[in-house]
Amino acid sequence: MSDTYFHPVSGFDLPRFAGVPTFMRLPYVPPGHERFSDVQIGLIGVPWDSGTTNRPGPRHGPRQLRDASTMMRAQHQFNGTRPFEAANCADLGDVGPNPADIMDSMDRITTFYNEALAAGIMPLTAGGDHLTSLPVLRAVAKNGPVGMVHFDSHTDLMHSYFGGTMYTHGTPFRRAVEEGLLDPKRVVQIGIRGTMYDEEDRDFAKANGIRLILIEEFHARGVEDVMAEAREIVGDKETYVSYDIDFVDPTFAPGTGTPEIGGPNSFQAVQVVRELAGLNIVGADMVEVSPPFDQSGGTAFLGVSIMFELLCVMSAQM
Amino acid sequence: MSDTYFHPVSGFDLPRFAGVPTFMRLPYVPPGHERFSDVQIGLIGVPWDSGTTNRPGPRHGPRQLRDASTMMRAQHQFNGTRPFEAANCADLGDVGPNPADIMDSMDRITTFYNEALAAGIMPLTAGGDHLTSLPVLRAVAKNGPVGMVHFDSHTDLMHSYFGGTMYTHGTPFRRAVEEGLLDPKRVVQIGIRGTMYDEEDRDFAKANGIRLILIEEFHARGVEDVMAEAREIVGDKETYVSYDIDFVDPTFAPGTGTPEIGGPNSFQAVQVVRELAGLNIVGADMVEVSPPFDQSGGTAFLGVSIMFELLCVMSAQM
Amino acid sequence: MSDTYFHPVSGFDLPRFAGVPTFMRLPYVPPGHERFSDVQIGLIGVPWDSGTTNRPGPRHGPRQLRDASTMMRAQHQFNGTRPFEAANCADLGDVGPNPADIMDSMDRITTFYNEALAAGIMPLTAGGDHLTSLPVLRAVAKNGPVGMVHFDSHTDLMHSYFGGTMYTHGTPFRRAVEEGLLDPKRVVQIGIRGTMYDEEDRDFAKANGIRLILIEEFHARGVEDVMAEAREIVGDKETYVSYDIDFVDPTFAPGTGTPEIGGPNSFQAVQVVRELAGLNIVGADMVEVSPPFDQSGGTAFLGVSIMFELLCVMSAQM
Amino acid sequence: MSDTYFHPVSGFDLPRFAGVPTFMRLPYVPPGHERFSDVQIGLIGVPWDSGTTNRPGPRHGPRQLRDASTMMRAQHQFNGTRPFEAANCADLGDVGPNPADIMDSMDRITTFYNEALAAGIMPLTAGGDHLTSLPVLRAVAKNGPVGMVHFDSHTDLMHSYFGGTMYTHGTPFRRAVEEGLLDPKRVVQIGIRGTMYDEEDRDFAKANGIRLILIEEFHARGVEDVMAEAREIVGDKETYVSYDIDFVDPTFAPGTGTPEIGGPNSFQAVQVVRELAGLNIVGADMVEVSPPFDQSGGTAFLGVSIMFELLCVMSAQM
Amino acid sequence: MSDTYFHPVSGFDLPRFAGVPTFMRLPYVPPGHERFSDVQIGLIGVPWDSGTTNRPGPRHGPRQLRDASTMMRAQHQFNGTRPFEAANCADLGDVGPNPADIMDSMDRITTFYNEALAAGIMPLTAGGDHLTSLPVLRAVAKNGPVGMVHFDSHTDLMHSYFGGTMYTHGTPFRRAVEEGLLDPKRVVQIGIRGTMYDEEDRDFAKANGIRLILIEEFHARGVEDVMAEAREIVGDKETYVSYDIDFVDPTFAPGTGTPEIGGPNSFQAVQVVRELAGLNIVGADMVEVSPPFDQSGGTAFLGVSIMFELLCVMSAQM
Amino acid sequence: MSDTYFHPVSGFDLPRFAGVPTFMRLPYVPPGHERFSDVQIGLIGVPWDSGTTNRPGPRHGPRQLRDASTMMRAQHQFNGTRPFEAANCADLGDVGPNPADIMDSMDRITTFYNEALAAGIMPLTAGGDHLTSLPVLRAVAKNGPVGMVHFDSHTDLMHSYFGGTMYTHGTPFRRAVEEGLLDPKRVVQIGIRGTMYDEEDRDFAKANGIRLILIEEFHARGVEDVMAEAREIVGDKETYVSYDIDFVDPTFAPGTGTPEIGGPNSFQAVQVVRELAGLNIVGADMVEVSPPFDQSGGTAFLGVSIMFELLCVMSAQM
Repeated sequence: MSDTYFHPVSGFDLPRFAGVPTFMRLPYVPPGHERFSDVQIGLIGVPWDSGTTNRPGPRHGPRQLRDASTMMRAQHQFNGTRPFEAANCADLGDVGPNPADIMDSMDRITTFYNEALAAGIMPLTAGGDHLTSLPVLRAVAKNGPVGMVHFDSHTDLMHSYFGGTMYTHGTPFRRAVEEGLLDPKRVVQIGIRGTMYDEEDRDFAKANGIRLILIEEFHARGVEDVMAEAREIVGDKETYVSYDIDFVDPTFAPGTGTPEIGGPNSFQAVQVVRELAGLNIVGADMVEVSPPFDQSGGTAFLGVSIMFELLCVMSAQM
Repeated sequence: MSDTYFHPVSGFDLPRFAGVPTFMRLPYVPPGHERFSDVQIGLIGVPWDSGTTNRPGPRHGPRQLRDASTMMRAQHQFNGTRPFEAANCADLGDVGPNPADIMDSMDRITTFYNEALAAGIMPLTAGGDHLTSLPVLRAVAKNGPVGMVHFDSHTDLMHSYFGGTMYTHGTPFRRAVEEGLLDPKRVVQIGIRGTMYDEEDRDFAKANGIRLILIEEFHARGVEDVMAEAREIVGDKETYVSYDIDFVDPTFAPGTGTPEIGGPNSFQAVQVVRELAGLNIVGADMVEVSPPFDQSGGTAFLGVSIMFELLCVMSAQM
Repeated sequence: MSDTYFHPVSGFDLPRFAGVPTFMRLPYVPPGHERFSDVQIGLIGVPWDSGTTNRPGPRHGPRQLRDASTMMRAQHQFNGTRPFEAANCADLGDVGPNPADIMDSMDRITTFYNEALAAGIMPLTAGGDHLTSLPVLRAVAKNGPVGMVHFDSHTDLMHSYFGGTMYTHGTPFRRAVEEGLLDPKRVVQIGIRGTMYDEEDRDFAKANGIRLILIEEFHARGVEDVMAEAREIVGDKETYVSYDIDFVDPTFAPGTGTPEIGGPNSFQAVQVVRELAGLNIVGADMVEVSPPFDQSGGTAFLGVSIMFELLCVMSAQM
Repeated sequence: MSDTYFHPVSGFDLPRFAGVPTFMRLPYVPPGHERFSDVQIGLIGVPWDSGTTNRPGPRHGPRQLRDASTMMRAQHQFNGTRPFEAANCADLGDVGPNPADIMDSMDRITTFYNEALAAGIMPLTAGGDHLTSLPVLRAVAKNGPVGMVHFDSHTDLMHSYFGGTMYTHGTPFRRAVEEGLLDPKRVVQIGIRGTMYDEEDRDFAKANGIRLILIEEFHARGVEDVMAEAREIVGDKETYVSYDIDFVDPTFAPGTGTPEIGGPNSFQAVQVVRELAGLNIVGADMVEVSPPFDQSGGTAFLGVSIMFELLCVMSAQM
Repeated sequence: MSDTYFHPVSGFDLPRFAGVPTFMRLPYVPPGHERFSDVQIGLIGVPWDSGTTNRPGPRHGPRQLRDASTMMRAQHQFNGTRPFEAANCADLGDVGPNPADIMDSMDRITTFYNEALAAGIMPLTAGGDHLTSLPVLRAVAKNGPVGMVHFDSHTDLMHSYFGGTMYTHGTPFRRAVEEGLLDPKRVVQIGIRGTMYDEEDRDFAKANGIRLILIEEFHARGVEDVMAEAREIVGDKETYVSYDIDFVDPTFAPGTGTPEIGGPNSFQAVQVVRELAGLNIVGADMVEVSPPFDQSGGTAFLGVSIMFELLCVMSAQM
Repeated sequence: MSDTYFHPVSGFDLPRFAGVPTFMRLPYVPPGHERFSDVQIGLIGVPWDSGTTNRPGPRHGPRQLRDASTMMRAQHQFNGTRPFEAANCADLGDVGPNPADIMDSMDRITTFYNEALAAGIMPLTAGGDHLTSLPVLRAVAKNGPVGMVHFDSHTDLMHSYFGGTMYTHGTPFRRAVEEGLLDPKRVVQIGIRGTMYDEEDRDFAKANGIRLILIEEFHARGVEDVMAEAREIVGDKETYVSYDIDFVDPTFAPGTGTPEIGGPNSFQAVQVVRELAGLNIVGADMVEVSPPFDQSGGTAFLGVSIMFELLCVMSAQM
């Protein structure tokens, strides 16, 4: 049972459009705050998109996600989970990136996450483009490779771009495997689709034992069957969850830089998270939400709805 | 067979973008008009959102719905119904609300509906936020409680907000049950979802015999099965239909104040109405369409498409 | 195996937001160009909407489709087709219409297509409103009637509008049958829905043997079953494919002038094209994409995703 | 003093977002209505843009202008004019155009205006593209050429487009001079700017005595001086006022098809109308308002603000 | 010289899109905070629009203003003022309104401001609609009437709406005069324009000695001359500054509910504030910023730019 | 007199919405093209924004500017210049940047411009953020420092960001002075405004003799007087023109990343360019146009209108 200090403000008391917007209307507890070490799940923003090869924007993601998150309430309608009672949750603030220096930014991110992990805080990240996951994994998997359930329309397993550039939002998991942060045999990528340049990323996946589930297979088998396999792949060892919003069909999530049509709808988008219950999750992220391409704000609203589902699963582990 | 006076203008004769926009391009027959008593189904606007606890906007709904309704034609493609021939339909105009006084506005609405009902007109309402349904029910259920098929993502059965405020768009059906306007055992609420503050509304439903069908059950059972149960619940006695546009998934209906992801798509949104055929309907409403959040106008277009389906069902009773 | 001259620019070499946008980043090879006769599949823009009876805009379609098409890559993720290697593809440019003269514009279009066909180029058209298909068919079916697989929410089989106007985007296929360009017994129209004025178009279809598949039948039977029937109807003789973007649900494709709710989602939108594999296709079009109503650009992106699928099917015939 | 039948609905009585929107919330009195002959100034919509050579949209103008006009109140703040008391004003409805036939549409427009003029009604038109002015002038100037004060960034004096097309929104006043509807020596065009194809239109103006006032001269001399000259040019004989919204700077009026930067601001946009007081006006129009390019609705709001100013000047003649 | 605790975060250290957005990136010091009594100027949000008679939205103002305010830096470019060094500034958070009860909301606002004033904090308010100013004045003018410099296109001096409703955003200053909160002889209203219902508000102004400066006079005399008179009117006694964003031309500030064309541009919008230097200001507000009508966010950006100018003037008094 | 090969396509022949969009509808003549050495003025896109410290987007600038440029015609209305006849102009295409590597991108840009300059082509650049100017100047000023007329609301003379990052869009001209590319005594910066962090950039300007003209001085003195001084500062030696679109007021140019209110209007925005006539211009750029923040496209349209004015001045030197 959580400390009431960590309970979000209710919309019955303060209308949801009022107040300084923190994630889920939780208290703001940045590093150095006196209650920092009491936090169990920390929501962290990484406003950074320097790894983006096409349309930028996710640097604005955390702020819009905070705004939309004020629409979330206290209890899951279907399964009754009350995540903010199950665990001490807080908004840890944003990692301050260096928009003009990728390597410096990655160091800043890893440093921040190391501090949170040292305080016993499990991170739930609001990105940022998908390169964000690499410096986060450098902290999370510091003691050895973890497994990963990865929702995305792209593998992000490319070798390099533009004649040798190694760090982009299309390469994080190639690097993570190379750096020993991910155990490729415990990695499953779900929802892969869209046109391809070539098969280089798929060759890498095949060579290393990463399981790709194309969207055609996803639609044919259904959520439950696919997720049962995913659970089996990662097993009961430490697992990271990485959720790229472009996993969802771009009509449901237009606010992203590299959309691919034909994806899951918003109900399936949360169903897959519910099926993660019982895994040994060590961290999760929601990335590639890009406000400049999200005129109605619907993408951010979907993003925080998914983050709430992730919180339900993560808080149940406490 | 209806009077040709009540036939809408055809797009073959006058392009659909031309002309002063009335609902469905029907004649404008406000109270006092010489043909008022010949109307069988009256389309009424209630441009009012003073009960809104979060994002306002439905006060602009009727005007945008009128505009979008000029896209509707004369005949249902699938079942061949020609509602404007089956019944004398007309645009009765808007109830003039008092945006700064909730109680005064509710009185104005009930008065307007009493006048229409006294003339033998069955009302199809374009709201307005969901508090609109309460003063409408005060007229419709004047002679005793009615049943209700309620499409929504919320129960709207809350007791009060902000420390005791009894009349908001989250409380109309609690009030309606208390006032004896609804027979709770003949009320079914379909599509309920989204995060909750607590279970107070569900406790009230359970205590009073109101049937809630969560979206998970809806998706699992399908439209036909769910609607068969709904028809059974309301039976052949007088029934009101209340359709909150947020029943539909917010990607299909972004123009609303309290969206909840994971809802039905636009095909299911009209299928559920078709399944109402044969009920003893005494009135219906389409509420919570909020133009400021509907940049493309798609929500209003979906709203009037649903209103056309409601008209097909309602006119078949004539 | 295609000539490397006709390979598109890769996003690995030049970021996708860079460069003058041609269709699919292919070379621009207009009539008169030295490589014109080497082209096998020509992508042609017809920026024209003078046949539009309601909301104009498709005249802006080709430019926005070119822009969005820079997001397409080289290979189909699911079936591995590499269309730009299978056939020499090129952007042939736009037919220059006369926005203020319908008959003149139709002549210009037919002339352009006659030239392409004379050079042995199979046309893939980016419209333009649906009247575009008529002057294209006058070139494509010059030697006798062809069959047609037609994806749309409307039949476009009307006789006339506004007191006798024969050439609008609601009449092209009535004219095409009358002119002997289409063999009505080899025509199937899929996805028909929306309210109707009357049954005149359906009577014409019935009298001539055109097969209409309403959206209700489409949803009930599923893509594979419906498309099997479609393939049977057109058989192995010459077949034209006409794809009106309003076939797709307007939430997925808001950028169009005459939306009708309840249509297929974006996954079904490409599935139906994949099921055309093996037909004897002589040309195809993507019409009614209307940028002024496509604020997010999602409709154009879906449109080019469908065009890529059409290219995969068409290039496989080479 | 006008008949109270013709007074608009007040926002104090019915909120401005409520009610079926007619121009200025005036009574709807179409041809055939029993009060038609009592109208002194008729507001007429011409939802038509078939003469548009570039970006269409003004066909949607009248509806959006009606909507925005509900924001207008009863009295001019600066000079105290109460136009709806000074003259019987009414909304006469829209002329139904034929979107696919320019010549037919022009005939329909002239017929409608002839009927209004025969009833003694002075027309204030809401277009429509600028070709609208030609069929209106055919009615207004039936008995001989009139003068014209023309606010625009273009002369609209071109000979033809696209190889001989004579009727477009770039040619109406060339035709009007040729047809003897305008006395060129009593025509002044104010605000001309933007890049040019060539000097053909300016040569025509010079040869016929039409006075062009470029925007540079307008800014240098100021509103009062320029308008004093304009009044002198048209004198006290019958004068038509044609106001293309693209006269105003496109930042103030983005909703138009052929914007040209560097124009007047919104204060100057109404000042020029006030300076028309005392002229012998026989009709006026507000054209080229194009809702698809007016996302915020600000262009329509400016358009009706200018129409209110025109009404003040016109009603003072009664 | 202010305490460094109250210095805003610099964009050189943390990019401006990063971090939880407080007003001007100042520390969040709500009532009860240990540093509350050290604050000299408190920025307070009042997310409330229940007094709005037409288009709602200002309830969302404070959040969007906070977001835009992260673009503000430390020093005034022209006069060198560094307001955050001149005074201890802080974000005091939002007053929690009751969206469904006007009287309750007004009490909550006055209570909050009384607490701030008791702590010696001068309030700078981000509304909220203009009714906000009334409960604020009830606190600010608790000890006797104050003068007011009021920038607006409306007088907000109406008696009542909709048959007797006394508290709307069109009536606050009538009530304030009646309640003895404002000394009407020390009130100047600048920028008045737009159509009027009648002259009731102007009669009240005249009878009570309130000075109205119409926009025509403003444009004719210029900022400096008008503001010299304004300074003379309020003199050196306690003065409140109320800034309705609709004072500015709606092209520069579209995000507001009751726009009136012809207003000042953005340069004049800040010039008028600079001319307040030296007055005895006891509080100020920025009201009627309505995000739903501010698609680009430019209105909020202008709003916070004006708030920065107000801070410069207010902090110079410390 | 230019070669007709280099004349743009006329809108009289091909409607302006038709055709593959090149800058100004000029021929596409990339490096390697057989007519490359015949080009006199080359329009070059630099789709790059990696130096952006706040809101990204200018990487999409060149494509949107090409699209908007199809609205430009052949002749200047006011002074009669026909730039495409005065000089051989062509679209040279885009420099392909490396979005994830700033130093690599700068090298690519300098290389491209060196090639153009070697062929005797004067560059007119469409950026890109303002860091673009630095690698361009490295080519243009290869043989010694040049003067510069710089329109902007910021000095872009900062030393570094985020703890030592030297290459951002806030530092290009500091670097350019340090690298000997600019002669600071021949540099004038016009339109400077907005809040400041500190005075570091102004100290650098003062120490090096760079002239800053704040917006207050600009408004007070007027365009002609300010530009006379600017011409005197740069004299008759080689001069570069750098035009940041945020020089213009953000209401006229919202599509940019770092707006500052209070700037020039669109008429002044082109007037300042006309006043450059007679200078010895060696290149010019239009930077910081950011399509994601330019929903209506008006910023790009203003941008190309300014580019047309620049072309008029530059072509007159030939």
